[in-house]
Amino acid sequence: MSTLNALFQPKAIAVVGASGDPSRIGGRPIAYCQRFGFQGTIYPVNPTRDTVQGLPAYPDIDSLPGEADLFVLAIPAAQVPDALRKAAGKGAQVAIVFSSGFGEIGEAGQALQDEMDRVVEETGVRVLGPNALGAFSNASGIAPTFTTFLEEVKPDQGNLAIVSQSGAYGAHIAMLACKRGIGLNHFVATGNESDISVADCIRHFATDPTVGVIACYSEGIKNGRAFLEALLAARAAGKPVVIIKVGRSAIGQQAAQSHTASVAGDDVVFDAAVRFGGAELVHNTQAFIDLLYTLSRRPPLGGRRLGVLTMSGGAGVLMADAAADHGLELTPLPEDARNWLDERIPFGSAANPVDTTAQAVNDMSLVRDALRVMLERGGHDAVASFFMNWPDNPSIGPALKEAIAEGIAGFDDRTVAIAINAGDAVKRDFDAAGMLVFDDPSFAVDALAASARIGERLREPAPRLQPLNASGKQRSLAALDEAETAALMQQAGVSMTPLEVAADAEAAVAAADKLGYPVALKILSPDILHKSDVGGIALNLPDADALRRAASQVLDAVAKHSPDANLRGLLVAPMAADGTDLILGGRIDPVFGPVVVCGLGGVFVELFNDVAIEIAPVTEERALAMLRRLKAWPVLEGARGRTPADVSAAAAAIAAFSRFIADNADGLSQAEINPLRVLPQGQGVVGLDSLILAGEGEA
Amino acid sequence: MSTLNALFQPKAIAVVGASGDPSRIGGRPIAYCQRFGFQGTIYPVNPTRDTVQGLPAYPDIDSLPGEADLFVLAIPAAQVPDALRKAAGKGAQVAIVFSSGFGEIGEAGQALQDEMDRVVEETGVRVLGPNALGAFSNASGIAPTFTTFLEEVKPDQGNLAIVSQSGAYGAHIAMLACKRGIGLNHFVATGNESDISVADCIRHFATDPTVGVIACYSEGIKNGRAFLEALLAARAAGKPVVIIKVGRSAIGQQAAQSHTASVAGDDVVFDAAVRFGGAELVHNTQAFIDLLYTLSRRPPLGGRRLGVLTMSGGAGVLMADAAADHGLELTPLPEDARNWLDERIPFGSAANPVDTTAQAVNDMSLVRDALRVMLERGGHDAVASFFMNWPDNPSIGPALKEAIAEGIAGFDDRTVAIAINAGDAVKRDFDAAGMLVFDDPSFAVDALAASARIGERLREPAPRLQPLNASGKQRSLAALDEAETAALMQQAGVSMTPLEVAADAEAAVAAADKLGYPVALKILSPDILHKSDVGGIALNLPDADALRRAASQVLDAVAKHSPDANLRGLLVAPMAADGTDLILGGRIDPVFGPVVVCGLGGVFVELFNDVAIEIAPVTEERALAMLRRLKAWPVLEGARGRTPADVSAAAAAIAAFSRFIADNADGLSQAEINPLRVLPQGQGVVGLDSLILAGEGEA
Repeated sequence: MSTLNALFQPKAIAVVGASGDPSRIGGRPIAYCQRFGFQGTIYPVNPTRDTVQGLPAYPDIDSLPGEADLFVLAIPAAQVPDALRKAAGKGAQVAIVFSSGFGEIGEAGQALQDEMDRVVEETGVRVLGPNALGAFSNASGIAPTFTTFLEEVKPDQGNLAIVSQSGAYGAHIAMLACKRGIGLNHFVATGNESDISVADCIRHFATDPTVGVIACYSEGIKNGRAFLEALLAARAAGKPVVIIKVGRSAIGQQAAQSHTASVAGDDVVFDAAVRFGGAELVHNTQAFIDLLYTLSRRPPLGGRRLGVLTMSGGAGVLMADAAADHGLELTPLPEDARNWLDERIPFGSAANPVDTTAQAVNDMSLVRDALRVMLERGGHDAVASFFMNWPDNPSIGPALKEAIAEGIAGFDDRTVAIAINAGDAVKRDFDAAGMLVFDDPSFAVDALAASARIGERLREPAPRLQPLNASGKQRSLAALDEAETAALMQQAGVSMTPLEVAADAEAAVAAADKLGYPVALKILSPDILHKSDVGGIALNLPDADALRRAASQVLDAVAKHSPDANLRGLLVAPMAADGTDLILGGRIDPVFGPVVVCGLGGVFVELFNDVAIEIAPVTEERALAMLRRLKAWPVLEGARGRTPADVSAAAAAIAAFSRFIADNADGLSQAEINPLRVLPQGQGVVGLDSLILAGEGEA
Repeated sequence: MSTLNALFQPKAIAVVGASGDPSRIGGRPIAYCQRFGFQGTIYPVNPTRDTVQGLPAYPDIDSLPGEADLFVLAIPAAQVPDALRKAAGKGAQVAIVFSSGFGEIGEAGQALQDEMDRVVEETGVRVLGPNALGAFSNASGIAPTFTTFLEEVKPDQGNLAIVSQSGAYGAHIAMLACKRGIGLNHFVATGNESDISVADCIRHFATDPTVGVIACYSEGIKNGRAFLEALLAARAAGKPVVIIKVGRSAIGQQAAQSHTASVAGDDVVFDAAVRFGGAELVHNTQAFIDLLYTLSRRPPLGGRRLGVLTMSGGAGVLMADAAADHGLELTPLPEDARNWLDERIPFGSAANPVDTTAQAVNDMSLVRDALRVMLERGGHDAVASFFMNWPDNPSIGPALKEAIAEGIAGFDDRTVAIAINAGDAVKRDFDAAGMLVFDDPSFAVDALAASARIGERLREPAPRLQPLNASGKQRSLAALDEAETAALMQQAGVSMTPLEVAADAEAAVAAADKLGYPVALKILSPDILHKSDVGGIALNLPDADALRRAASQVLDAVAKHSPDANLRGLLVAPMAADGTDLILGGRIDPVFGPVVVCGLGGVFVELFNDVAIEIAPVTEERALAMLRRLKAWPVLEGARGRTPADVSAAAAAIAAFSRFIADNADGLSQAEINPLRVLPQGQGVVGLDSLILAGEGEA
């Protein structure tokens, strides 16, 4: 059983710093819990009053006549650690700390937060906060929070759970959700996250049978691995997670850091984490609410086949454009169904979009029949439609609603979305008749497309989160030279070009005789990361003479440009056959741990930022998906008469490289194979150069 | 004076097919005109009634006691041509044809529409329609339309003019605009556009002093040049034009043999046309309305400097992200202003975004002072802010409104936008206090960014629309071979590689001796467009022997693969120096006329669709801007140690090529220089191959 049960389903709640004024921070939780019908006991703690909001009050925690599994602390920050200790003695499982004046105000506050952390460790009490707006659980009838949004709306019961790192924005989202008619089950704002994090809450929601859809607002994740595990738990439970993440841009990240003092992390890695966990990212509030609404009403779409029904050709094209933007398929109706529709609606269109024309105003059965034939014969996973302001028209609206309801009856496995321009009451009315209701036709299509993506992701096999440093074979990765690095990569399963280490020019010639000309010559030093910058490399040497000359040039150039470098000799390698060059990179993200990146060398990475990034390790299948995601994929695939490259060998190499990264997460900060030359199909790959930078502990 | 004055500002309106029922198609215009206070005369024409809606009615047009400059025809299609003729005799300047049953129903209707067109030509009466929803002009108090939206809203007076090719969608937009509180001046739906087009209306609005902002919904433009002229007229008048265009995804696959032309699909040309005209494209209804609202309230922004003010850090970051997406600059406040703010708001943030924290709820002067210091000292062109649901709170809302109004007082040259979650009345109230009001903070930033883009465009010098075929030097472009094509390009001002035509191998050797080795050898035939596909090309020939061998191979291969081709001999050219290859393409778009496209050769065009397209001709300056717009621009510029390419020579070549296209618009369908090799800076460019496909009349 989740240790957060006491937060969302407590037996008894003690409010320390309870106020008789239901609009005060210490008064709201009591007023709300009474209003939402909490069936357990509420213990107000107030040193100066006998009763608080009609309930018997107690002067201090020690005086409580019974235990409370949930404590709310609305007291000055300095008193929090002591109160936590006392709460632990009175059965506290979870404490919500409203108080501010901790980490968010700087050093002095951080000391207090550290002290609180120690109490948490000693007592095992879990803390939400400090500086937290609190929580709300509709089914439990509790609202240990001082948010004002519950004064304005009374949320319907439902399957949505919201967890937010921002109290203000979280409450805004919750209120918009309620106004949209989305049933809200849980709302929790995590504040400073000294203990309970967004990840903990998502993990709890994954196991909570009353939760169907999870919404998350994040400004930056502290424990990335816990976050990944939480997403995987929700994914395994088949529950969509929709995330809005602020701080995507550099300026936004700066602002986020000054706001929460949290490390925002690399946003590209965040995207990879979300993809790994099968969640969906949105970038604005409207898309967030539209998608939560869609998922709270209907399961994710079973496929990408969209039907568009319209009574104005223009709006149909607008929706078709939006569908194309998202890769939804406007599958056509079978011919007999089209013929049938053509007869029903002579001047309309039976293609997809189906256009009833304004004729439907006079004969609503056209709408009913068009919808029915689309669902029955078109096999559309969803139908999107646009009815302008007709629903608001008293002489048209009710008939339209009836016609749609009749048309979609019996197709509960499909989703029918309409966009209308109407008042709230009318919108709710149409929604209640079984269709999804949106304000904007483009946004309706956006939400359906997101639902289709989520559906696809939840049907895919989920990746496993591999334990780190699992091989048990870690060795020190400090100060490796290229020969050692290449040997490690080869050992890890990446085919590397043969390298010979030579002490001097003559040894290099002997090595080249063995390898065969032409050869490449490189300086060997753990201190020289960019060999070409210091003249430490010579390529395409055709014979021994050229090799001797190159050796002397390379040694001179290095002596001049890197006089202090620790030199370990010369490296000789055969020139590789022609192929397509990939760049593989791996690093240990401070938040999410090992990640692997790949892209095509040259302009692709440099100018088009055409890279794929994933949480490491990846399977060969996932590695191949990374390659396919590249815009440059056709180059590998052999478009336009090019030779197809050995992409399965490349995928195997990426997978092996990514395992190496994950197996050595503690020992390295970065690793790179650049280039990994992908030879023509069937001929494999060969790594031509590689680099490992040790982790901080190894430097 | 615009010939459309009678449409928007008639002296008298005759309604033919007038109905006594104000909800009928022939009744609504009369009812609306009375309701909106039209000061001129209304003549109902009805064969069976003496009065219609309280006005004296006339049995037919001939019986009208006076002239009417605007006629509304709500009669069966077959009667329209005759009615038009009679209307011409009664002073008609413009006739609105509501009737359907013309071109939109197929051949029979088209015949009727053609007949109507002849009457238009004979009489000079301008026609809106047929199949048109009609028009509305608020200042004139006229509504010759059967739209229903005017039953639901009474538009405020204002500076917005809407022209739409779709009646239904246009009316939807008009209603949303009115509900948003945007003052609506003109609304016109153009129907089949047999005569009056969207372009005609935009052109009229450009000269109409009561119009400030023009909104256009388009499903496809028929006369592209008139549309471009109309956009330029609006641009010259400093009036923003906002366009929503549907059918973006319906990529018209025209018979495009050459590569660049196929990349530049129809909708890309539309984008180029909009850019040429300085207008702004939007892709969904929400963005359309948000931007029209912004522009109807405030002039386009003077620059890209955005200040963000927030009371919740999270929302500030969200807006900062949206701003970064659009390239707005979150310029910081000067240090003294930051220090001052830091003292005022100890736990807030004086960086941009400025965060007052929820402290502002208790002390609204913080909002006032923060706004004032941002506008006064930050130099922001606009400030965006987010106040959640506070305005709806009766104890906070009025004070907040007051604080904002005080903060922005005296900064009429700036734009302050707030996002709030509030009821309509409250939103209007805040709007009336001088700020722009949005529902969603991201959308507020989107609209400000669009306003900034429009402002920049209107401040730029406008391009001129060059007359076509203006050189007077057109010659037949049919069946040109490469040597002739290259000579034409050279003559047009593009430096082309020297070419020698040789009758046989020995003549080729003589030519090569003159040019210097190595050389390229190509088959010369107007019938072979893709020489390499038929083995008709050999490169890098080092000497006479190689050239002889190549000549025999080329001739054999061509004889085998293109036995019927008209051969004109062999072409010899020197091999060009290394450089960066551009592809230049030009074609005559059936709608917008000559366009020019450029991109970097190879993967850039193929995989990344990295091309720039413009209406031809372009100036050198505009050509350089095209190159700078390419994602591959850094390759030309010399990023990462590459040699900078001669981009000014490339721009000059693009400009010259584009003039050639425009000067020969009647004679060609496509032309291409591929590759145009751009040599290192100072060394110019050289076209290595070129192609002209004659226009239909020339084939």
